[in-house]
Amino acid sequence: MARLGENRYGKAQIRLMKVDRTGDRHAVHDLNVSIALTGDMAATHLSGDNAAVLPTDTQKNTAYAFAREHGVGPVEEFASRLARHLVDTHDSVHGARVHVEEYPWVRVEPHPHSFALSGGEARTATVRYDGRGERVVSGVAGLVLLNTTGSEFQGFMRDRYTTLAEASDRILCTTVDATWRHAGPPADWDVSHAAARAALVEAFADTYSRSLQQTLFAMGDRLVTACDSVAEVRLSLPNRHHFLVDLSPFDLDNPGEVFHVDDRPF
Amino acid sequence: MARLGENRYGKAQIRLMKVDRTGDRHAVHDLNVSIALTGDMAATHLSGDNAAVLPTDTQKNTAYAFAREHGVGPVEEFASRLARHLVDTHDSVHGARVHVEEYPWVRVEPHPHSFALSGGEARTATVRYDGRGERVVSGVAGLVLLNTTGSEFQGFMRDRYTTLAEASDRILCTTVDATWRHAGPPADWDVSHAAARAALVEAFADTYSRSLQQTLFAMGDRLVTACDSVAEVRLSLPNRHHFLVDLSPFDLDNPGEVFHVDDRPF
Amino acid sequence: MARLGENRYGKAQIRLMKVDRTGDRHAVHDLNVSIALTGDMAATHLSGDNAAVLPTDTQKNTAYAFAREHGVGPVEEFASRLARHLVDTHDSVHGARVHVEEYPWVRVEPHPHSFALSGGEARTATVRYDGRGERVVSGVAGLVLLNTTGSEFQGFMRDRYTTLAEASDRILCTTVDATWRHAGPPADWDVSHAAARAALVEAFADTYSRSLQQTLFAMGDRLVTACDSVAEVRLSLPNRHHFLVDLSPFDLDNPGEVFHVDDRPF
Amino acid sequence: MARLGENRYGKAQIRLMKVDRTGDRHAVHDLNVSIALTGDMAATHLSGDNAAVLPTDTQKNTAYAFAREHGVGPVEEFASRLARHLVDTHDSVHGARVHVEEYPWVRVEPHPHSFALSGGEARTATVRYDGRGERVVSGVAGLVLLNTTGSEFQGFMRDRYTTLAEASDRILCTTVDATWRHAGPPADWDVSHAAARAALVEAFADTYSRSLQQTLFAMGDRLVTACDSVAEVRLSLPNRHHFLVDLSPFDLDNPGEVFHVDDRPF
Repeated sequence: MARLGENRYGKAQIRLMKVDRTGDRHAVHDLNVSIALTGDMAATHLSGDNAAVLPTDTQKNTAYAFAREHGVGPVEEFASRLARHLVDTHDSVHGARVHVEEYPWVRVEPHPHSFALSGGEARTATVRYDGRGERVVSGVAGLVLLNTTGSEFQGFMRDRYTTLAEASDRILCTTVDATWRHAGPPADWDVSHAAARAALVEAFADTYSRSLQQTLFAMGDRLVTACDSVAEVRLSLPNRHHFLVDLSPFDLDNPGEVFHVDDRPF
Repeated sequence: MARLGENRYGKAQIRLMKVDRTGDRHAVHDLNVSIALTGDMAATHLSGDNAAVLPTDTQKNTAYAFAREHGVGPVEEFASRLARHLVDTHDSVHGARVHVEEYPWVRVEPHPHSFALSGGEARTATVRYDGRGERVVSGVAGLVLLNTTGSEFQGFMRDRYTTLAEASDRILCTTVDATWRHAGPPADWDVSHAAARAALVEAFADTYSRSLQQTLFAMGDRLVTACDSVAEVRLSLPNRHHFLVDLSPFDLDNPGEVFHVDDRPF
Repeated sequence: MARLGENRYGKAQIRLMKVDRTGDRHAVHDLNVSIALTGDMAATHLSGDNAAVLPTDTQKNTAYAFAREHGVGPVEEFASRLARHLVDTHDSVHGARVHVEEYPWVRVEPHPHSFALSGGEARTATVRYDGRGERVVSGVAGLVLLNTTGSEFQGFMRDRYTTLAEASDRILCTTVDATWRHAGPPADWDVSHAAARAALVEAFADTYSRSLQQTLFAMGDRLVTACDSVAEVRLSLPNRHHFLVDLSPFDLDNPGEVFHVDDRPF
Repeated sequence: MARLGENRYGKAQIRLMKVDRTGDRHAVHDLNVSIALTGDMAATHLSGDNAAVLPTDTQKNTAYAFAREHGVGPVEEFASRLARHLVDTHDSVHGARVHVEEYPWVRVEPHPHSFALSGGEARTATVRYDGRGERVVSGVAGLVLLNTTGSEFQGFMRDRYTTLAEASDRILCTTVDATWRHAGPPADWDVSHAAARAALVEAFADTYSRSLQQTLFAMGDRLVTACDSVAEVRLSLPNRHHFLVDLSPFDLDNPGEVFHVDDRPF
């Protein structure tokens, strides 16, 4: 019979909207919460005894109830509160990973109760807790940035299969998925997140780029410098290619003006 | 043998980025262009004679070349220019429908060449041209709006299958897809579009809503009033349901604070 | 004040699974039901009086209850039953359009209760009913077909913007979205649908194609001939382009063997 | 300055169609290839010196050229061939991970050149190679399975937030993403893959399920037993929830017949 390895179970995509009604103006937190638990699951796998299983339905209920009992606040704190509860109050749950995405609504000024969704970017937090210590990671997902110039790609390795021309002036466009791990909590999670995001955007904008890797390193370096609490940054910057269209068959030049976009922004 | 009815052919999803490099600061137009043509297509359908077919590849080339030759400018004008060219210079093309979506990039201030994509909303234009007259429709797609209060839904029809409770205070959330047809060109397409969009958002925010239909009518009415050139408005406002979570099993009340979201924002 | 035009409201994407438990072997109907109603909606738009509105929640309940009371059967009959009920039993509902997609599960033989989802294709039915007559349309959506040869595209119109080379042997690939309207009910909806689908696939496979339009016409012609009840066919066949890769920079020929696919199959 | 950690770069989503034209009947391989490379990238990150970077464009060209030079065959072999080439012929590339998805086309019998896409399931292979050894993993992605009975979920842990009722007869539905690592190559990759997939499906169908975890273990156990070469199985089985609809407000019972589906199959 097969030997059982590590395993996780949980509830993905708990969609939760919290309205803060205190004060004259409402505020909203629009969250997507995913929970993964580990524990001693041998019995349920082998014999179907579920006594050690906390149903995903209960995990979902807990997220909704915690939003009411404790509010939401910074997503790092919301995720931590859930992770600690799930492990500390259930003997057979040994570890929890809570991942939260928050979608950005902006107020329709000056209306106190009206909001517009501000696009595809999400603020993220991931908290892992094992009953002793926790690991808190903040992030942004889906932040799309573009430089129309100030980017080149030259001097790369060539082999039999190379046809790419060297580019001395190209569009640089990428979808930033960034996460940063905290050595300890910052003074204010919201302030820290804003500073981290600003560092990423600024470094992307003002770095003359000889490669996407160089820009990536500059962004991570800027973030670590800007945020004292941050111990480590991870960045995924897939290129969203913009290809200069060859207009010469139509007797037109194309000095960096018309591009074919390889990816859809949605 | 079957009789041939109306038919259209064309090129969807031409993804085009135009960089305006005049002046110190670049500007970008990020377009998704779709073209549909009608004409006398009997020969190609029946015998495979393609002499009356303008290939979709040529349609795509034309869009790229026109962006270089004439610039982009307001999407209504770009669409009109393409539609008129396609019909007026090809005898066998009798009608053209050009639909353009423009995605919103915002400058990363103060950087002159850096931009961030601002979410899921698109500005749209659709131009139909048949060799004599044209019909110009402007629009927005994917604008997501939310009111956390000021909305009820009561007094609706009841039958055997009704279980819905009357709601005196609910979240109203919808994805606005709106189009408005112009009787004639406004003085400035960009100014007109901004006014139309603002009218939609304002009417959504300040209308006390007894039903989504009432809000819909108020939005259309506000737009027509705000924009002299507009003859007709069409609105699609699918409800993005937010269901109040029943927290009573956990001895918690829920005075309009915690909701389950039925749809994902992406 | 603006004048109110035509309008519809309704419930999209009612996801319903019906298990038929009669007999030794279960059967499943996995449906996605969308309902749109018209009626005299002036009151709700203008004053927020909802007495003429049948809530979308009730529409959803009705779909679930009808699946229990009457079973599902052929989707055309299920849609018709719902449309007739919604109009005939509610004075203020003047018309209904019910669209149903059914997803294909195939039995895991020989197991009587186990099924595997068979891909992206759906069987569709759309019924419009206005209290007097009904219009029944059957269809398939998402059927992806490919010919690796037997397709050319030559002799097309050329203009200043033409760069496309004539192709004497190319891949022809398309996603078939087809609907066909019945003049009256066929003897058996399931048999009729199978014959219609087979006609589309056969005509795609055995027509030597001088253009996608020619293939389209052959498919519609074959379907009308195969199904007595069918009065009209509509086809959407967007090209899924496969571009022959130029391998000559690597001293390799490419006699119709390696292609770049422009679209993802999912 | 920040210290550079591990990093990878590469080309995702190379969409490649290979037509095998030998013999009377064509065959097709429809692939989605993703490549990730590791190496000594300090120079490009820190100074923008790209001499150690193999451009993603070259990686893409290599995949297309290899399909012509060596054919495709089993995806495990295609991935291995690419991974070995990328590392063994480039000093600065120290490791390669090649992931291939193959989409299933079925022949439209008896036509020798016509195919229909058979849904959302993909066969996958992932090969990691570091210049010395390789690690080969086969898999399936997007296989959706359903049991209409033979599944319960009872005896689970309960806490303050538990509302879930015990279920003695429920629908079990899941999207199977499975990977299995080979200790060594099997005699025939295609035969091995078919046996592995059959083991998963059979175990899902004939296991009486007291929890999804029990079914998961049975599926992995069956696969390891069926395939000699397999050393390790990983399974992800997210529940696709089907909720029994409460029809009692309409004076209807619901003995496991009508369900609300929580997820869309597409």
